[in-house]
Amino acid sequence: MTASSNHIRVGILGASGYTGAELIRLLAQHPSTRITLLTGDRAAGKPLGEVFPHLAYLDLPVLTKIEDADYSQCDLVFCALPHGTTQEVIAALPTHLKVVDLSADFRLHDVDTYAEWYGHAHLAPDLQKEAVYGITELARDAVAKARLVANPGCYPTAAQLPLVPLVEADLIDADDIVIDAKSGVSGAGRAAKEGSLFTEVTEGIHAYSVAKHRHAPEIEQGLTKAAGRPILVNFTPHLMPMSRGILSTTYVKLAGGASPADLREAIASRYQGEPFVRALPMGQVPATRHVRGSNHTLIGVVADRIKGRAIIVSAIDNLVKGASGQAVQNMNVMAGLPETTALMQPPMFP
Amino acid sequence: MTASSNHIRVGILGASGYTGAELIRLLAQHPSTRITLLTGDRAAGKPLGEVFPHLAYLDLPVLTKIEDADYSQCDLVFCALPHGTTQEVIAALPTHLKVVDLSADFRLHDVDTYAEWYGHAHLAPDLQKEAVYGITELARDAVAKARLVANPGCYPTAAQLPLVPLVEADLIDADDIVIDAKSGVSGAGRAAKEGSLFTEVTEGIHAYSVAKHRHAPEIEQGLTKAAGRPILVNFTPHLMPMSRGILSTTYVKLAGGASPADLREAIASRYQGEPFVRALPMGQVPATRHVRGSNHTLIGVVADRIKGRAIIVSAIDNLVKGASGQAVQNMNVMAGLPETTALMQPPMFP
Amino acid sequence: MTASSNHIRVGILGASGYTGAELIRLLAQHPSTRITLLTGDRAAGKPLGEVFPHLAYLDLPVLTKIEDADYSQCDLVFCALPHGTTQEVIAALPTHLKVVDLSADFRLHDVDTYAEWYGHAHLAPDLQKEAVYGITELARDAVAKARLVANPGCYPTAAQLPLVPLVEADLIDADDIVIDAKSGVSGAGRAAKEGSLFTEVTEGIHAYSVAKHRHAPEIEQGLTKAAGRPILVNFTPHLMPMSRGILSTTYVKLAGGASPADLREAIASRYQGEPFVRALPMGQVPATRHVRGSNHTLIGVVADRIKGRAIIVSAIDNLVKGASGQAVQNMNVMAGLPETTALMQPPMFP
Amino acid sequence: MTASSNHIRVGILGASGYTGAELIRLLAQHPSTRITLLTGDRAAGKPLGEVFPHLAYLDLPVLTKIEDADYSQCDLVFCALPHGTTQEVIAALPTHLKVVDLSADFRLHDVDTYAEWYGHAHLAPDLQKEAVYGITELARDAVAKARLVANPGCYPTAAQLPLVPLVEADLIDADDIVIDAKSGVSGAGRAAKEGSLFTEVTEGIHAYSVAKHRHAPEIEQGLTKAAGRPILVNFTPHLMPMSRGILSTTYVKLAGGASPADLREAIASRYQGEPFVRALPMGQVPATRHVRGSNHTLIGVVADRIKGRAIIVSAIDNLVKGASGQAVQNMNVMAGLPETTALMQPPMFP
Repeated sequence: MTASSNHIRVGILGASGYTGAELIRLLAQHPSTRITLLTGDRAAGKPLGEVFPHLAYLDLPVLTKIEDADYSQCDLVFCALPHGTTQEVIAALPTHLKVVDLSADFRLHDVDTYAEWYGHAHLAPDLQKEAVYGITELARDAVAKARLVANPGCYPTAAQLPLVPLVEADLIDADDIVIDAKSGVSGAGRAAKEGSLFTEVTEGIHAYSVAKHRHAPEIEQGLTKAAGRPILVNFTPHLMPMSRGILSTTYVKLAGGASPADLREAIASRYQGEPFVRALPMGQVPATRHVRGSNHTLIGVVADRIKGRAIIVSAIDNLVKGASGQAVQNMNVMAGLPETTALMQPPMFP
Repeated sequence: MTASSNHIRVGILGASGYTGAELIRLLAQHPSTRITLLTGDRAAGKPLGEVFPHLAYLDLPVLTKIEDADYSQCDLVFCALPHGTTQEVIAALPTHLKVVDLSADFRLHDVDTYAEWYGHAHLAPDLQKEAVYGITELARDAVAKARLVANPGCYPTAAQLPLVPLVEADLIDADDIVIDAKSGVSGAGRAAKEGSLFTEVTEGIHAYSVAKHRHAPEIEQGLTKAAGRPILVNFTPHLMPMSRGILSTTYVKLAGGASPADLREAIASRYQGEPFVRALPMGQVPATRHVRGSNHTLIGVVADRIKGRAIIVSAIDNLVKGASGQAVQNMNVMAGLPETTALMQPPMFP
Repeated sequence: MTASSNHIRVGILGASGYTGAELIRLLAQHPSTRITLLTGDRAAGKPLGEVFPHLAYLDLPVLTKIEDADYSQCDLVFCALPHGTTQEVIAALPTHLKVVDLSADFRLHDVDTYAEWYGHAHLAPDLQKEAVYGITELARDAVAKARLVANPGCYPTAAQLPLVPLVEADLIDADDIVIDAKSGVSGAGRAAKEGSLFTEVTEGIHAYSVAKHRHAPEIEQGLTKAAGRPILVNFTPHLMPMSRGILSTTYVKLAGGASPADLREAIASRYQGEPFVRALPMGQVPATRHVRGSNHTLIGVVADRIKGRAIIVSAIDNLVKGASGQAVQNMNVMAGLPETTALMQPPMFP
Repeated sequence: MTASSNHIRVGILGASGYTGAELIRLLAQHPSTRITLLTGDRAAGKPLGEVFPHLAYLDLPVLTKIEDADYSQCDLVFCALPHGTTQEVIAALPTHLKVVDLSADFRLHDVDTYAEWYGHAHLAPDLQKEAVYGITELARDAVAKARLVANPGCYPTAAQLPLVPLVEADLIDADDIVIDAKSGVSGAGRAAKEGSLFTEVTEGIHAYSVAKHRHAPEIEQGLTKAAGRPILVNFTPHLMPMSRGILSTTYVKLAGGASPADLREAIASRYQGEPFVRALPMGQVPATRHVRGSNHTLIGVVADRIKGRAIIVSAIDNLVKGASGQAVQNMNVMAGLPETTALMQPPMFP
């Protein structure tokens, strides 16, 4: 970040979780960064290869406790810590550091909404106001100037990318949006929980946190801004047997005389030239496997048989565009690097 | 079916597909039936164990071509043949036979709707009128008297069981129903298709046949009858990596002053005493794995955060309640046997 | 078990794990048993349906703490507790109870071998001597008379069923046996462990506990008895992404002039008439999916291209024949009931 | 390949299969190649994105029929055609082309062995002699000079990398090698076959082609060369539910006084400095998920409990090091480029 350095020196706080590992996977191919700090409390003192054998061959710093972190070695930190614990950590960071926070702690800007959904007052309300909510394509300029970027949630990224242009242009009834989302299991992290066991997840699907998932207010915050008035959505997440991927099937009603093709056109033109967001031809819908391992977002629009309605399907990899990939994308923007650096590897299929 | 026989002699036309195998799995535990005929054109002349090694140990007739079938050995046939080819086969059957047809051929009663969705005029319009559409719990009396039962589709079973009581009682707005359904791969049958390959399906999800799936008019037929006026629904199926199971997430708007709890209560009381349909406590939702391998339907109702809306989730095993299990259930009703015979094995989890 | 009762009153100690749930699934169809006791320490006070929603519809006793168990209500208990804790529990049980123990605690008869592999002296050495090691087909008479049956491990069942007849008849070189076994994840139980997470297991395979798995001495105990001299085997287990199933691929060298076909014949004749063990035609090998959910064992023998060698493949469902199914089979034998009672449901495929 | 061009112009014959897609995925990040030709008979005339939507965003030539290929636009072709059809295609190619053949057609050098295993005389015996068998690490110099490289099979790559150094150094008994291999489903290609359906593969495992798989003579050819005398192996492949990956568990007997640690040391020193082959610390074994999507080979050695024996486990991604990755590696060597170009992306986990 400084003219004197050849590389951005990067720290990853919480490197022993899946989003941490994914940051390392992506940054391993980044020509302009160097990882100088990895923290992981339970694994402190261990090489990363003991926690993630697939990365053992990389030359990386040993994991340290977060309280032992030497931030003088870093220009920027990615914060991949659990929700709730992050705000105080970030508030205590030296201010020379730029920060991309992958937790939910700085995503909601309204203090009351935060308190309502997280059960306590925010512990760093000043930073909460300063933080830039970083769906890169929707906030590029603000991200470029930000010191603290709140990296968006996986579901909210998949939901907002298609919906924001439509709500802004009043092409749909923003008061009647149904979002039925399906997620892979890595979204639940690497914590050992009964509900994430192979035997509990394979060969099945279920809805969870129905009408009470914390990504709902995050989506609503974005749509409220787009609409210029308060918007609520019906958001229903499902857990299904795949490691990566989110498919978001959104049911909308047309407004202002728009046709389904107008919706597709609004999305396509909004993301014209974007390297990571693509509208499919009208009537086609994406599959999560077509974005697996990549930073791409695919969006399809189909006219419903019922006049005046459309179905919008968006697909991302929750660990890439839904987390670590977008975080690197935001870092690139913050550092004035080409935005696609380290993010051009194609999806992996099969 | 005659007083003189100890067992109902059963034939299965199309025994080399998954629904055929599932019929055999279930009937193997039925004390009052005997399988006397199995047809399977490509596998004619082979023992069933070559087609389905998991059933090789059962004492079963060799597969024959359908034109070689000796129907004098049967009292009832299950017809598990592909859509389109079935209607002529059934029209040509001896009339002493009772028939449970697992294809879609006799599910739609309106000749124009059939022609619209299947691309040709029905070839047995008289039988089309006679056939009883057999969601057992919703048509028990008619099934009991039927000679030909059209066994419902998997998606339509999962969708109609919760919706019919609500539409009948005007508790929801029948003109604003969104059904987001997720299915296992066995619904696509055993045909060797690229889209059903392990490598194409595992670790991913996608919507398909959006706004044009043939189960939409089947669902609409049931809801139209329930409402007493034409009903259209938004029905969007998804293919996901599991062999068995359908989860149907339905988004509804309350009508006539009903609360979400009223919806749950209407469903619970409609199916009070039913052995195979159960409403979960308010706010709970089912998982497909909780019905796997069984004939059960589980239904959950949750109030949305948006006032006046609710989410209904229903789960079945597409090969059991969504196909072969309901077929056996209908056979039991047609034959005057206890309806649960051969259908009481608990779900298999994990 | 007493002439005066119509049903055997059964308790399940440790009903909140997978083998407990599987016992309940099977016993739900048993006409001669009644479940009168379920223990589950962490879930004490809850109905079973909270722990296993797929079984919520069954009429079952509430879970209790093991110290609150009223054994006067039981004739027989299945003990599905963790290894190590079981021996003291069983030692303290009232002696009117018959016991089928699914843990490893009573499987090894040699006190030194037990101490070597489990790291401590056995706490109930008298019971250790009394316990009957119950691969039903190989120990039927002893099981019939036993008060305490040590239900065999999943790997040892899959390995010994084909090998014991061959070693007894000196048809193979018992000093050169390689067993490469592949297991589903339910073998690791329902404990929340990082290594059992969906994300850690799906789409991959690895060997584990190489040359130090505790099932090795159990297999060796059986083969040592069969050979009449000490036998060691190379046993290498692998964890793979399936919930249920064990495939055991065993590499043997022929002895005493035997041909591969002689091996197959020895296995087939040994299990002639057995309802749950079947030798496939020469050259055919089984798949785990052909036994899924059932108590069957399938065994195939193939001649290697290298003269004097053969490959033997055996398949079981680890939760059924490898645990709860064999436990019920043993209970049936102990109680003088038809051995197949509650165990005749066909495999579930797909 | 010529001084005048900035890029190697690459053609892919058979681009509509999985190895074709994987070549494109890797080459998309290769700075020194340009794809100028893609053939795919059934999909001729279509953009690649219709066959592989995950690659639709890349700027690539339209698929052509192989007979319409303009080879003047190519410096090198990858041949990813089915076995048997390839030899005549390659024999007819213009001789200015360098060729990396991913089929099995040129892997076996002995005409009789080829005829025995493939059922017909080789149709291009001169090329058969010329072709270099290209496990890169074992044949780097020959690959560098080759015009035609026979890219090794997936199983043979996983098997030979650990075994060749051990056989060469007489550290194991080359006459007593047992290779138990487990493969993902992509090894069967994208052809629509019943045996590759999701429903047939998920949640199960089975051995196939036992004692008759065509990769056996390929492995034996390599070990025969290493030993300097004819070697046969017991090779047993298994199909399991994962898209990518091969785990090869090899059982060996020590020779010449070697210890298991000597085996590990021989492997480690042989591949010292190799970017894509790594020996794990003694006693550790790899998982396929630790190489997924990468060109890495991981090898672990464990001492068996039986004196004089060891277990060797190797893991690769069958589509990368087992096919397209090694093909690109060979191309890099043939073209004098840095061998790791386009192959440095880390494994993808989870």
